[in-house]
Order: sequence, then C-alpha cells, then structure tokens
Amino acid sequence: MKITKPRGTRDFLPEDTKKRRYVEGILRQVVKNWGFNEIITPTFESLELFTLKSGEGIIGELYNFTDKGDREMTLRPELTAPVMRMYVNEMQAYQQPLKLFYFENCFRYERPQKGRFREFWQFGVELIGSKKMDADAEVIGLATEMLKAVGIKGDLHVNNLGVIRNILSVLETEHQSKIMRLVDKKDYDGLDEFLEEINAPASLRMKLIELISLTGTDAITKARDIIGDIPEIEDFQELLTLLDAYGVEYTINFGIARGLDYYTGTVFEIYAEGLGAQNQVCGGGSYQLIQLFGGGDVPSTGFGLGFDRIMEVCKLEAPDDVPVVIIAKDSTRLDAIKAANKLRQHMPVYNDLMKRNFKAQLSYANNIDSKHVIIIGEKEVEAGKVMLKDMASGEQELLTIDEVIQKLTKK
Amino acid sequence: MKITKPRGTRDFLPEDTKKRRYVEGILRQVVKNWGFNEIITPTFESLELFTLKSGEGIIGELYNFTDKGDREMTLRPELTAPVMRMYVNEMQAYQQPLKLFYFENCFRYERPQKGRFREFWQFGVELIGSKKMDADAEVIGLATEMLKAVGIKGDLHVNNLGVIRNILSVLETEHQSKIMRLVDKKDYDGLDEFLEEINAPASLRMKLIELISLTGTDAITKARDIIGDIPEIEDFQELLTLLDAYGVEYTINFGIARGLDYYTGTVFEIYAEGLGAQNQVCGGGSYQLIQLFGGGDVPSTGFGLGFDRIMEVCKLEAPDDVPVVIIAKDSTRLDAIKAANKLRQHMPVYNDLMKRNFKAQLSYANNIDSKHVIIIGEKEVEAGKVMLKDMASGEQELLTIDEVIQKLTKK
Repeated sequence: MKITKPRGTRDFLPEDTKKRRYVEGILRQVVKNWGFNEIITPTFESLELFTLKSGEGIIGELYNFTDKGDREMTLRPELTAPVMRMYVNEMQAYQQPLKLFYFENCFRYERPQKGRFREFWQFGVELIGSKKMDADAEVIGLATEMLKAVGIKGDLHVNNLGVIRNILSVLETEHQSKIMRLVDKKDYDGLDEFLEEINAPASLRMKLIELISLTGTDAITKARDIIGDIPEIEDFQELLTLLDAYGVEYTINFGIARGLDYYTGTVFEIYAEGLGAQNQVCGGGSYQLIQLFGGGDVPSTGFGLGFDRIMEVCKLEAPDDVPVVIIAKDSTRLDAIKAANKLRQHMPVYNDLMKRNFKAQLSYANNIDSKHVIIIGEKEVEAGKVMLKDMASGEQELLTIDEVIQKLTKK
Repeated sequence: MKITKPRGTRDFLPEDTKKRRYVEGILRQVVKNWGFNEIITPTFESLELFTLKSGEGIIGELYNFTDKGDREMTLRPELTAPVMRMYVNEMQAYQQPLKLFYFENCFRYERPQKGRFREFWQFGVELIGSKKMDADAEVIGLATEMLKAVGIKGDLHVNNLGVIRNILSVLETEHQSKIMRLVDKKDYDGLDEFLEEINAPASLRMKLIELISLTGTDAITKARDIIGDIPEIEDFQELLTLLDAYGVEYTINFGIARGLDYYTGTVFEIYAEGLGAQNQVCGGGSYQLIQLFGGGDVPSTGFGLGFDRIMEVCKLEAPDDVPVVIIAKDSTRLDAIKAANKLRQHMPVYNDLMKRNFKAQLSYANNIDSKHVIIIGEKEVEAGKVMLKDMASGEQELLTIDEVIQKLTKK
C-alpha cells in the first residue's frame, strides 16, 4: 500500500536539506552576533492562545484538534504568541531588554499554492522590554543584515502606525481596527465605502487618504504638512536617523498597516525580487501582547522571516563535503574500518557496506564525485600505510593515515 | 488571562536551548563524518502510516486528529515510518546504500512522567539497501561514537533475532510475534503461560528459555551448543568481529527482542547511567518496512537516539559567547551603531536599546558577565577610536575598531 505525504506538506531530500541547513546556519550566526538568544516552545499550544490574539476567525485556518484529555489544542500558526506566553510564564524576571530568537515550523490549513505550504518555517526575533526607537531600529537593522548575509536584496518599507492612529483617534476603537485592516489590504474602495458608512468627518477622510498614499523620501515632510508636528512623526524621524546609522536603505510608506490591533508604532515589511505576487519575506514592528496574556505593560518589537520564501530566492550553495571513499578487499575490510575510525575524526568518510568488489567500489566513488579515494589492499596493510588517490589527477601516494589526515585537512 | 504550555510539553529557556543546540551540533558533525545525509519529513502524517506499521493499538498513544478536509492525520510518534514512506515515494532511484539521518521532534499522548514528554526529540539514522552485517556494524559503531562524542558512556547490548526466530519457526506467525513481545518485555511468567497455552513442544520451550537468558562473552558458544551451527549465529559472529574492528564494547544478550515484527536480524539497545529505570538512550537494528509501504524488497538498518535523555545525562557545557557590550552616550549613539555593525561581522555585540545612562550600561555589562566593554565617548569619536576595557583586569586601551577586532578574535 502506497502512502503519500499529507497535502500541502513537503519532504526535503538530502540536497534540499543540506542547503536549508546551510542557509539556516548563516542566519543563526547573524542573530547570535546581534546578541539574540534562541528559545524553543512546544509545536502545539492551547487554541485560546491564538484566538485571544487574533480572534475566533483564525480557527478556520488552523490545524486545531481536541486532545485525548478533551483540551482544545492547535499546531502553532506563528511564533509571536507562544514566545509572549513563555515570557509571561517564565521569563518576567529576566534582565531587560530580552533579545530572543526562534527558528521553527508553523502550520496553516489553507489552500496549497505556489510558495505557500501547510507546514512552513519561520525565523524570527522578539525584543522585549524597550519601547525606544533604538529597539525598533535594531530589529530592522538585523532583518536587513540577515537577508544580506544570504545574498538577498530586500526592499524595505517602514511606517509608524502612531501617525495614522493619531488621525483615527476620534473614531470608535472597532472602527479604527476595521480601517487599519482595509488599509493593510490596500482595499481603498472598501475603505471609501466604510468611511462613508460610519459617517467619518470629511477632514479626517481627506487627511487619511492623503496620508496612506505618502511614500518616498519627502513623505515625512508631507505628513507634517497634513497633520502637523505630532510626537509620532518625531518618533518616526528618529527611527529613520537610526536606520541611516545602520546603513539600512528604506522606503517610507504610510500605507503599511500590518492589519492587527496589537501593533503599536513602528511597522515594516521587506519584499524580495523573484517571488511574484507573494514577495513579502519579512514583516514586523513594535507590539503589545504581554498584557493580553496576563503579564505587565511590557513593550516588545520583532519580526518574522519567511524561511521558505528565502530558500526560494537564495542563490547560495552549501560547501561541497563529498566523503572520501575507502576502497578495500574482503581480506582488508577490518583494516578499512580502523582507518575510517581515525579519518572520521576529521572528515566525512564512506566505506563499503555492500561487500562490493574493488571495481564496483571505485565506480561508486566516481558516481558520488568523490575527490579522493583511499585504497587499502594487502600490500598497504603490510606496509602500515594506505594509498591515497586524487580522483581528478589520478595521482597516487602511499601514506600513513596521519599523513592522509594532514594532507586532506590542510587545504 | 494567563495561558500555560500544554501538559507534558516544554519551553526551553535560552540557557537550555543553547546547550541543546551545542550537543545537537556535535552529533550532527559525527553523523556527517560517517557519510550520512539529513532529510526532513512533515511533522504530521496520514494516520494509516503508523497503524500499518504498528497496528491499530497504537492510536491510543497518538496525537491524531481529523483535518479540515476530513483526512485522518497524526503528529508523528517516530521517524522510521516517515523516512521509509519518503524513500518509497521519492528515493528509490538513489544510489544505494542510502545513508540518511534526521533530527526531529515526535509526539506521544501518554502520561507525562520523569524523562518522558509528550513532545520529544529523536536523532536517528536509516541505512537503506544493504543487508550485510557491515551495514549493521556501521550503524552500531556510529551510535556508540555519537554517545562518546557527547561524553556519555553507554552500555551496548546486541542480539540477532534470526537465532530466536529460527527456534520459533515451527510455530504460527502470530504466536511468534506474541512470544517476541513477551521476551521484549522480559515477562517470563507470561511467556511460560503462553507457551503452555499454545502447547509448544517441550524441546522448543527448553531451547527458548535457555537462549533468551544467554548473555556475556561465551553466549555465542553456548547458543551453538543449544541449537547448533545455523547461519544466523554465523551472522551474529561476523557482526561481533566487525564491532571489534570499530573498537566497540558490547554485551551479547539473546534476550533483546525489540518487540516489533519488522525487525529482521541484528537488534541492539544502549543504556546510559544516571537515568534510573528509563535508561535506554538508543535502540535499533535491521528491519523490513519498505515492502509494507509499497516499495521493493529493500533491507534497511538504523537506530533512534533519545535526544532528551541524552541531554539529561550529558555534562558538556556550550562554549561561552557573552556579547561584548558597547557603551555610548546619547551624543555618540549613532557612532555606537556604526561600531556595532563592524564588530558584528566577527563576534556577538550588544549595544544599549533602553537609552540608559553610562553607569547603567556598565552595570548591565557586569550583570551579563561580559568580558569586554567598548566605550565610545565624544573624545573617542574625535580620535576615530574606541576605548576597549577588559572587565577582569580593568585595563583600558584606545584602539581603532579594526584593532579591537584583531585583538578579540586572535585568542
């Protein structure tokens, strides 16, 4: 009976996995050098963690289930809520700011399509405890540096939601949320209709429509013209000054809204070339979730990088590490094992497990593109040496194992 | 509202995660040097993959659920079945032997208890395509080397199930399976009863009881005395000769049964000190599952290492990598960012994100046990240099950033 993998999920073959781990390793090194520390949370969580954060509407997209103890659970759709839950449960006494990162899989029940999978990987950071622009600037600087490190040119758009919220502050909270969602979706017809429907003041409507279409270098000046000198614009200006120090290129875009109520000020999105319509590889900003989960009034800022999309556009290749192949005769099999034991302290080694003859072993080495083979025949064993053969040049040398190790690890 | 992690699962704090990743990294290096390649399979699979392998009885221990498309799914309880499924679906054309490894989480719905969690991690290898003892010996050699590499002294017990199956071959298949399960559980009273119940021949009963109690260096000789020279004993002897070449210490134990029908010949278990009753850290052997999943008659051999138990007894500590702390004034904040940008190409760096004053920044560096701080005041900026302070000696030096990098990366 042939069983297949679940719809919308993937098997990663050795060549795919190797590249993923290589890129993951580069990203890990960057976040570590920015002083972030990794945490790991459970793959499934209580369903209410996510309904509390995103509303009941999210259930339709979740892999939720009732466990054998009748508890409502779900595979995590994202990591920010779990990290905030963990912070509230276990990390409130930690020195702040707390700089955390994660690299984990998430799950969404949605129609599988190009670049969207039911199991997907997120690389993210959460910086907890600072509401200064310095913290927002650092996470944006880090996100762009991570993309740069894996050779991806990202197009960064930044905004400060405080500005638009300032304009909307006279409206009911619920109406504000709805407007933010419409702005996020760039549904400007829907926005017009809704503003009409709630009878929003004409001056507010004009300011709003003008503001959300502001992008580019002079957007801040224009925003000041529209709504005057408010603290949120000053914050935004400070963020940009800091980003300049980080050497980060950005586009000011007052139309970025992120669509979720818990974002408080700075928000940003990064798009990458070569991904078609689904080109957002990173999204983040400052937010407040800790109070919602029973903690104090602690600010946080962070982002999530879509690892699968990064893998789609990343051109890096993992370094070559084809094993050295040891070729032995039946009579020298045990010597081959002993040689492998020593060599494996230093490099990948393959020795025959199929009782193949000499020729078949050599052709295996050729098939896997091995650069060196080590031949261990009776003569070599007698001499206490092995024959190292360079597969490209055909050159052979009789050496001790220690000499082989020295030679092959030197380059 | 306070939400907690699901029962039986764990949050890993930064210090725990760091150690886990460190030990994982060591294990990865070992398997790579043995020529194994990593693959990744989905976190959930069709339920039938596991019922086909282990029977309907397993469902009670699974995190199974019906997805929104009405498919019966389950979080994987182990990785061997998924790897074999993946092999059948996608890897049958690969060059053999195929040497695969995985490091992933698994899920079991069982009563949480010391050392047993509902989400746990397995590090495993599957070697596909060779039925030679060379393959079994390699995976056993690898398992012991992995434990050794993380400082764990394992107690390895090996057996060849062919020997006991040879004795049982006159019985019905179902009775054979039941007996193997009783042997595996060391339920010798139950075994006596069952042999009585099925009216097993007296000579078979005597041979069986004698055989399964054989352990130690002369066990092979004694086994020959009991059932004569059968090929399975010769295989076992060959395995031991190979293990000697690997330098592996072992205990022959004819009582190891692994309890599952798909094990064909060599089986082994490794126990570690310091774990109490649940002291098995590794189990494996040669098996046949590929046919069951719709593939050809392809032999395989492998093992799973219980990563959580390894972490429980592993005494290794991850190397210290406390960030260098940059201390700046409000007027030199942007210079601090530029310095951090350069330093972070080489080492972990922290700079202030809280707009703390000089003293508070210094006390943060003390609190995290930073070995060096870099002070950037106005005078330093004017000189195009920074002040490097050794926190242990109190020594200070005015250096360029490049000189700091050279100094701190040299050691």
